[in-house]
Amino acid sequence: MPSEALLERLRKVRAVILDGDGVLFTGRVFVEPGRGEVMKERSLIDGQGISLLRAAGIRVAFFSGEATGFVEAVAEKLNRLPSVASGAWPPIAVVTGREGKDKASAAGEWLKGEGIEWSDSAAMGDDLSDAELLERVGLAACPVNAHPIIRGQCHFVATHGGGDGAIRDFADALLGARGLDPRALARR
Amino acid sequence: MPSEALLERLRKVRAVILDGDGVLFTGRVFVEPGRGEVMKERSLIDGQGISLLRAAGIRVAFFSGEATGFVEAVAEKLNRLPSVASGAWPPIAVVTGREGKDKASAAGEWLKGEGIEWSDSAAMGDDLSDAELLERVGLAACPVNAHPIIRGQCHFVATHGGGDGAIRDFADALLGARGLDPRALARR
Amino acid sequence: MPSEALLERLRKVRAVILDGDGVLFTGRVFVEPGRGEVMKERSLIDGQGISLLRAAGIRVAFFSGEATGFVEAVAEKLNRLPSVASGAWPPIAVVTGREGKDKASAAGEWLKGEGIEWSDSAAMGDDLSDAELLERVGLAACPVNAHPIIRGQCHFVATHGGGDGAIRDFADALLGARGLDPRALARR
Amino acid sequence: MPSEALLERLRKVRAVILDGDGVLFTGRVFVEPGRGEVMKERSLIDGQGISLLRAAGIRVAFFSGEATGFVEAVAEKLNRLPSVASGAWPPIAVVTGREGKDKASAAGEWLKGEGIEWSDSAAMGDDLSDAELLERVGLAACPVNAHPIIRGQCHFVATHGGGDGAIRDFADALLGARGLDPRALARR
Repeated sequence: MPSEALLERLRKVRAVILDGDGVLFTGRVFVEPGRGEVMKERSLIDGQGISLLRAAGIRVAFFSGEATGFVEAVAEKLNRLPSVASGAWPPIAVVTGREGKDKASAAGEWLKGEGIEWSDSAAMGDDLSDAELLERVGLAACPVNAHPIIRGQCHFVATHGGGDGAIRDFADALLGARGLDPRALARR
Repeated sequence: MPSEALLERLRKVRAVILDGDGVLFTGRVFVEPGRGEVMKERSLIDGQGISLLRAAGIRVAFFSGEATGFVEAVAEKLNRLPSVASGAWPPIAVVTGREGKDKASAAGEWLKGEGIEWSDSAAMGDDLSDAELLERVGLAACPVNAHPIIRGQCHFVATHGGGDGAIRDFADALLGARGLDPRALARR
Repeated sequence: MPSEALLERLRKVRAVILDGDGVLFTGRVFVEPGRGEVMKERSLIDGQGISLLRAAGIRVAFFSGEATGFVEAVAEKLNRLPSVASGAWPPIAVVTGREGKDKASAAGEWLKGEGIEWSDSAAMGDDLSDAELLERVGLAACPVNAHPIIRGQCHFVATHGGGDGAIRDFADALLGARGLDPRALARR
Repeated sequence: MPSEALLERLRKVRAVILDGDGVLFTGRVFVEPGRGEVMKERSLIDGQGISLLRAAGIRVAFFSGEATGFVEAVAEKLNRLPSVASGAWPPIAVVTGREGKDKASAAGEWLKGEGIEWSDSAAMGDDLSDAELLERVGLAACPVNAHPIIRGQCHFVATHGGGDGAIRDFADALLGARGLDPRALARR
């Protein structure tokens, strides 16, 4: 059961920024000789969590450090859902930085464009390059297998690992704090 | 050891409906830039469990929410087995819904066509989109790593995870309740 | 520490028959729409274990139930090692059955051709289709994640899972029972 | 908390030699019929650890036993980073041996060329073919899932497995012993 302080933070969140490797994806990569990094793995349970966030009116952005097309491929898939086509859900934004160093400023620009304050936003990250971003947002979250330094600075630590249910844990907590029944949202 | 109430439910089952992602498959997906979701992972131990169900005369259907060809590829493989060609086993049905919202009605239509009552059927699901279907069937089952809400509503919780032995656990329980020796069935 | 009875069994082994799915491979399979079962996963640690067996003069055979080319691909790779080309190691045999029903007789034919008695051979299997074969051999072995019925009938249960170190555990035990130092064998 | 003796060893390290299978990669391999070993899996967290080592001025070499292109593909990727192009970081070396038998001498040649003593170098290995190399270096390290014989001879055993965070654990320890803040290095 989250503390009242955490519940308050959870209730304020209007936008969620999700890191790519280690959050949306597991953080592992499949390598093929000659072709390099060909595949990454993610969980469809997390995809369902992202749908719940959108159904609850929370904006979602993915952060893509390198423009390698992995994060973009997931965003594209989730932006083809009927609820986006119908205009009920805004598309997921893909925020791009350079080498993870300016994640915080890239995310800040996106939030500004959306008219959302840092204090009303959350981010989920797993490694040192996310530290600055996690310091800025009103609610810092991470998967259970995040780097110890990151875990130490987060308000919310998921039960599951990155790319393996952590986003869903966070979505469930965000909905629960609002008193929303995910079953009702999933059926809509 | 299952309770007598569960054993009775297990003995009544004439048809089993299996969800795709998180039950037949692990719920993870492999993503390739440009190509999107290219691969899913399942367990051959579960395939053996499905064969045991068919050998015991229990009908099997896969539920495929999106017609992306993953569930269909598994059904096609399992419907090429010699026992199907010989007519000893009926083919596995692929039941299709739209966005998971009407899984229950799609499954209901299939059961009706087969002349099987809801009370004589079982389903295995792992997430909220399976909740309605699991409420209808006589026996609700889920993998150990199903969403907590789903786990809370199931009569049978497998020892293994989805796509990783959960179906086999369920098949073993269905056979055990009937006093059938899986070794004898496997040898036939 | 193995019991003296197990050590005696381990010392007698002149040939080892390894099942494919769940022993050489993890038992999981990667599925692609349209193409079906495209990949399986195995451990290079097990490959090292197979090399140690061969260096110790123990014959190795893989069992391939369906001629899908997975087991064959591994055998081909391991039969291209310099120690095979030089004639120091005999090639790994691929024993083929039909639908797993006659694994025992297929293995028996191979053993006969090699002039090795059932009592001087071992097999590692993980599921019911291996039960008959495991009953025949002098030493029955399985990965830690084998089916409970199989685990119950085996003399040796590995610490690791199938396709993930189980074969290596077994190789280490076979060498240890002979008083062979795997470090010395690995360096040869 | 590492012992003072380990801290001293950690502080002396000027070069780190990393094995391929079981250290840089998980030690598992994905097999495709006809094509053989097509993919290996590694962790991007380890890649971040390698960047931290380079930022701290520690030389890094990968050992590739067979010239199959897997290790080379990772080195190539990490040598395309902007910090290498700018000349701030020297490229990662790929040291090649023949069948793992002369890992120690191949590594020794590389160290000599770099003007670094054995006593000022570290290696991370996971299996018997790494034993000789690990005996030579000033600091022997291994992933938590290394072979028991290897674990027994190492000064540093990582918390994580090979290809799954072990290199990062080691990098964090090397930096920690120097009193370096990885957050500051990651931001540079």
